[in-house]
Amino acid sequence: MKKFVFEVLLKSKKGRRGKITTAHGTIETPAFVPVATKGTLKGLTPQQAAEIPIQLSFVNSYHLALSPGMATVEKLGGVHAMSGLTYPLMCDSGGFQIFSLGRADSKQKARVRGEEEPFIVKKTDEEVIFRSPYNGETITFNPKTSIAFQRIIGADIFMAFDECIYAYAPHKYAHEATKRTHRWLTQCISEHKKDNPRNQALYGVIQGGMHEDLRIASAQFVAEQNVQGVAIGGVSVGETKKEMREQIGYVAPYLPSDKPVHLLGVGQIDDIVDLVQWGIDTFDCVEPTRLARTGVLYSTQAVFKRSDSYTFDIVKNKYAADTSTVDKLCSCYTCSHFSKAYIHHLFKQRELLGYTLATIHNLSVMEALMKKIRSELQ
Amino acid sequence: MKKFVFEVLLKSKKGRRGKITTAHGTIETPAFVPVATKGTLKGLTPQQAAEIPIQLSFVNSYHLALSPGMATVEKLGGVHAMSGLTYPLMCDSGGFQIFSLGRADSKQKARVRGEEEPFIVKKTDEEVIFRSPYNGETITFNPKTSIAFQRIIGADIFMAFDECIYAYAPHKYAHEATKRTHRWLTQCISEHKKDNPRNQALYGVIQGGMHEDLRIASAQFVAEQNVQGVAIGGVSVGETKKEMREQIGYVAPYLPSDKPVHLLGVGQIDDIVDLVQWGIDTFDCVEPTRLARTGVLYSTQAVFKRSDSYTFDIVKNKYAADTSTVDKLCSCYTCSHFSKAYIHHLFKQRELLGYTLATIHNLSVMEALMKKIRSELQ
Repeated sequence: MKKFVFEVLLKSKKGRRGKITTAHGTIETPAFVPVATKGTLKGLTPQQAAEIPIQLSFVNSYHLALSPGMATVEKLGGVHAMSGLTYPLMCDSGGFQIFSLGRADSKQKARVRGEEEPFIVKKTDEEVIFRSPYNGETITFNPKTSIAFQRIIGADIFMAFDECIYAYAPHKYAHEATKRTHRWLTQCISEHKKDNPRNQALYGVIQGGMHEDLRIASAQFVAEQNVQGVAIGGVSVGETKKEMREQIGYVAPYLPSDKPVHLLGVGQIDDIVDLVQWGIDTFDCVEPTRLARTGVLYSTQAVFKRSDSYTFDIVKNKYAADTSTVDKLCSCYTCSHFSKAYIHHLFKQRELLGYTLATIHNLSVMEALMKKIRSELQ
Repeated sequence: MKKFVFEVLLKSKKGRRGKITTAHGTIETPAFVPVATKGTLKGLTPQQAAEIPIQLSFVNSYHLALSPGMATVEKLGGVHAMSGLTYPLMCDSGGFQIFSLGRADSKQKARVRGEEEPFIVKKTDEEVIFRSPYNGETITFNPKTSIAFQRIIGADIFMAFDECIYAYAPHKYAHEATKRTHRWLTQCISEHKKDNPRNQALYGVIQGGMHEDLRIASAQFVAEQNVQGVAIGGVSVGETKKEMREQIGYVAPYLPSDKPVHLLGVGQIDDIVDLVQWGIDTFDCVEPTRLARTGVLYSTQAVFKRSDSYTFDIVKNKYAADTSTVDKLCSCYTCSHFSKAYIHHLFKQRELLGYTLATIHNLSVMEALMKKIRSELQ
């Protein structure tokens, strides 16, 4: 089994170009990581994903633990075997759901068996107990179970179990949550070490909320640990883009020079273009796939020009008789075969093919952008 | 441009095996014709359709006239160019919508611009005027426009404009409607002859309702005309399967021996298996694709055994942890790569990939069934 290796091929003020080697293949960085939360890349077959080609996808241990459930994922031999995706996978730890399902006010509730019940049943310094909105069963996430789940999932890159801190959390709360994240990281490292025959990588996650001192302390702590990579978490949970960049600026000087750096949940085009300069290697974001399913398509020209408005809405009537391809600079399957008018028609008629063609296009533009960014790092 | 040619390769009591040659390729018959009403094969890319492989699809002039509209279809160079489907296409005339949108009681209405308006504005011996539910505009179907629309669509096989008669229509109504269909056929033939540089075929449609004398007279009339093929219409509009078979039995002795015969809108597995014996060559039906999108999958074994129950519902909980493939006798993309448990998970989570994988499978089983039927005609 191939070892997990990160090589920095070039470093400059504009960012760094590198290569991550995993058991499922290599990833040229900087790379965009399309999100395949539930073990499926949003309307694409593995064959279509390979044709783009996608280098790496992001799956989610919380969602996979709910459906199809860890027993089934295990029976199926992990997410690669289950999903037919053959390229490297990166996995979230469940820590994001402490934020997304918990919120400070705990008002979010699931309707389970006719009753309103909270998504998070219990949260302590040791663990978080979630309730499945599907069947009401509880599921416990802590460093031990999160690593166990990710081991079953079989991702090439694990995330340590962390607490994603809500935006504008006060210093006291952010401090306590960050301490938890650090304790959990230590436990995850020892848990991961126990059994890692497939040389999967573990990334530690930097938290700290919006507070400079906590962010710096967290970056220093995580960088010192025996992890194979570092992720920056909790920078895209409700704050402004300016604030998001500030938080990344706090931690940038402390990021390790010899380990890959992932930015969790950030990857709009303007973000990526700006943030590679801080030495960030990989970015996951739902935007290209989610927008595609609403008919919002990327324009390569606008993306390459880093225009503020890099998308257009194919559902608008102005495209109803437009015989041109979606994007003359793009050579994806969609742009090689179909007109704007046809894709407009598919969306108007809610034909499934529209969602697939739009997704192929948006992900292809992202790949082209990342290729361009990499080529500029020479 | 290749001529439209039909060859009978073998004829027996069990049916006939043949070959239809068109400008877009040949079709081995008996063949199943998956329905691509709006110029898209329901969740599949043209590449995926070609991989099954699909021999022939059925598109609909009424639906394409509404969206994307004939001006756009023409601008895009016809449905082959628009959709990327490269194999032969067969086109409906709009006549089915006289039944499906008109019904005897005319109670069906569309909500257009906040008002309830009938789908059919006017119906005379000369023409039918439909109202678009999308924008309220009217669209006229008569022999001249139907042929013109189909010419723009560019199908390899046209249907003459006919009136599909509702089930249990009394003799008087069925007689008048059938006379209209015959008059319209004569007009369609002369309209089609005027301009047919691409050697597209025109099929005449047998109507007659449920009345033996009208069915026989219609079959005789249509068989005598200068058409390249014959279709049997209006046998699947609400009557029982027994009545449907009776109507086909009425016309079977009068079907031409040297022209291909299509059965409109019929193609459940038991129907096909029974009806090839009457010399029917092609069958279109929405069933395999429509069922697929609800998670109802075909079992090759049950299909080949002609079992009454040839489907199973992948959404049922019993498949949640079933690691076996959908169908061990099937070698389609779905069955070569995925487990029942994974497809169950995709449907439970309403992930788009589920609909695509299920559609690939059901259409692959149909193709395997037709191949088996053809091989048994030796």
